[in-house]
Amino acid sequence: MHAITLTEFGPPEVMQWTEVPDLRPAQGQVIVDVAAAGVNRADLMQRQGFYPPPPGASETLGLECSGIISELGDGVHGWRVGDRVCALLAGGGYAEQVAVPSTQLFPVPRGLDLHAAAALPEVASTVWSNLVMYGGLRSGHTVLLHGGGSGIGTHAIQVAKAMGATVAVTAGSTAKLDFCASLGADILINYKEQDFVEELPDGADLILDNMGAKYLERNVNALAMDGTLITIGMQGGVKGELNFGALLGKRGTIHAAGLRGRPETGPSSKADIVADMTKRLWPMIEEGVVAPIIHAELPITEAAEAHRLLDADAIGKVILRIS
Amino acid sequence: MHAITLTEFGPPEVMQWTEVPDLRPAQGQVIVDVAAAGVNRADLMQRQGFYPPPPGASETLGLECSGIISELGDGVHGWRVGDRVCALLAGGGYAEQVAVPSTQLFPVPRGLDLHAAAALPEVASTVWSNLVMYGGLRSGHTVLLHGGGSGIGTHAIQVAKAMGATVAVTAGSTAKLDFCASLGADILINYKEQDFVEELPDGADLILDNMGAKYLERNVNALAMDGTLITIGMQGGVKGELNFGALLGKRGTIHAAGLRGRPETGPSSKADIVADMTKRLWPMIEEGVVAPIIHAELPITEAAEAHRLLDADAIGKVILRIS
Repeated sequence: MHAITLTEFGPPEVMQWTEVPDLRPAQGQVIVDVAAAGVNRADLMQRQGFYPPPPGASETLGLECSGIISELGDGVHGWRVGDRVCALLAGGGYAEQVAVPSTQLFPVPRGLDLHAAAALPEVASTVWSNLVMYGGLRSGHTVLLHGGGSGIGTHAIQVAKAMGATVAVTAGSTAKLDFCASLGADILINYKEQDFVEELPDGADLILDNMGAKYLERNVNALAMDGTLITIGMQGGVKGELNFGALLGKRGTIHAAGLRGRPETGPSSKADIVADMTKRLWPMIEEGVVAPIIHAELPITEAAEAHRLLDADAIGKVILRIS
Repeated sequence: MHAITLTEFGPPEVMQWTEVPDLRPAQGQVIVDVAAAGVNRADLMQRQGFYPPPPGASETLGLECSGIISELGDGVHGWRVGDRVCALLAGGGYAEQVAVPSTQLFPVPRGLDLHAAAALPEVASTVWSNLVMYGGLRSGHTVLLHGGGSGIGTHAIQVAKAMGATVAVTAGSTAKLDFCASLGADILINYKEQDFVEELPDGADLILDNMGAKYLERNVNALAMDGTLITIGMQGGVKGELNFGALLGKRGTIHAAGLRGRPETGPSSKADIVADMTKRLWPMIEEGVVAPIIHAELPITEAAEAHRLLDADAIGKVILRIS
């Protein structure tokens, strides 16, 4: 089969579509013939050598894909060859085939295009595990989403609105904010011109943050009483000053979590997240309340351009078509 | 009646036992004729002018007491004049009488001395609200308690052991650590000689911290995967450097909360905490599994000495006898 390999760590051009050995499914895994793979910011970091795969995971880029099951490993139940699926991956999505634990498979939601489904697993699992399962998002909450125009942001807006929350977003352009508004965002904050703390005088019950250190002080100040800051990215730096007095004054919580390093099964596992999403989020997608937001779909041979697009001003997801 | 008043903010001697106006119960309050009041570190700060009472609270020191109900305000149900109670207060305990919302009353646990019950409300509410209600303490957890010899620490050891946790404590003397061991602590760490991160190679699911900034980095490093750091005091400073990379690597949570500023009723309220404790913790006390740990009981006229004792090397609580 073919897969994206890296000639070295570096700029987008290090990615090459090359011949690699075929895969066999391990116990509990299936082989998916990949139709499309989603591009994530983590891929850009991994390409540069800053985000090595966890032990045992594929060295190939790609944290999510859609496709057709072509082979079942031992001990797989509930799935059949030919099933249309999308999958949460620890790696390996930029390839014609990927081996994935069956507990990380989702059915392609009814009514959704097979390729479009590749845009769902990573953002949906990130948003669901953090805002809903960890953060307890519920009707009446005010949620602040940083990077409202991102793949995560555009998905989170829809989920939070579907669950009855008031949604505030930050973004750096009018185009992105307009798009967020079209998805239902209630409070639009241009971070280049406005201070999100001032724009949320009553505070946010939940903040989904990708900036880390740079926003730490202001995020704590923007919390409502008993509010929770959930940091899933550190684009604004790793180390920041935490004011315990401010946090205690809010009875606040700071949580930081990733998806890729979670165990496949057991507590806090990918299997738990996938099962809960299939039960509670998938119906929202099948009803059309939550939809994948795809900025561009490029052939896998143009992976370099896809990475440049995501790094530039993509609104929503960029996906790579493989078959 | 008499109450402790402050001639000015300052050293223990500013506290004077003086004549003050009697109290009347507001709607939903009762008057308690105080038998004893517990001394808390917050009292020492308030005496020095560093911890003003929340709006509407008594200016008098004292966050907990025991005594006998002598008058019921309008709208109080379920309590009678003559009932033996202990109470969680926003202030006012260092006095012959205190007015307290009936939702912040506990019955004196069966078998417990009326005066000894004054040692319970503040530490028990702090430990229960943070470790059990917020932190989800459960059998099999490893819990790290900083200041194991303190009023909070000696209570938390007993509660955590009763709930089936493995308990690690830090303290600064062999005498304190020996006492913690006698209460059931499993892992004894002298912070003057040992590094608690090294002593907990598998990490702690919950950490109850009173040091704030000074311990932040090491507390995060001492978390187990999916662990939670709960900071309830800032004796080691207010502002510390948070490493989001380390926190994310643990899928960790940092929570900071106080008790005094919580609303009387509604979400996250004192009423909620008191109700849950009465239902779930009080039986443990009545069975003798959890007991108040009292280092010294002094007459209220020796409040200055009581404050000096707490600031020195008290193991467990110091209480003031008023009647």
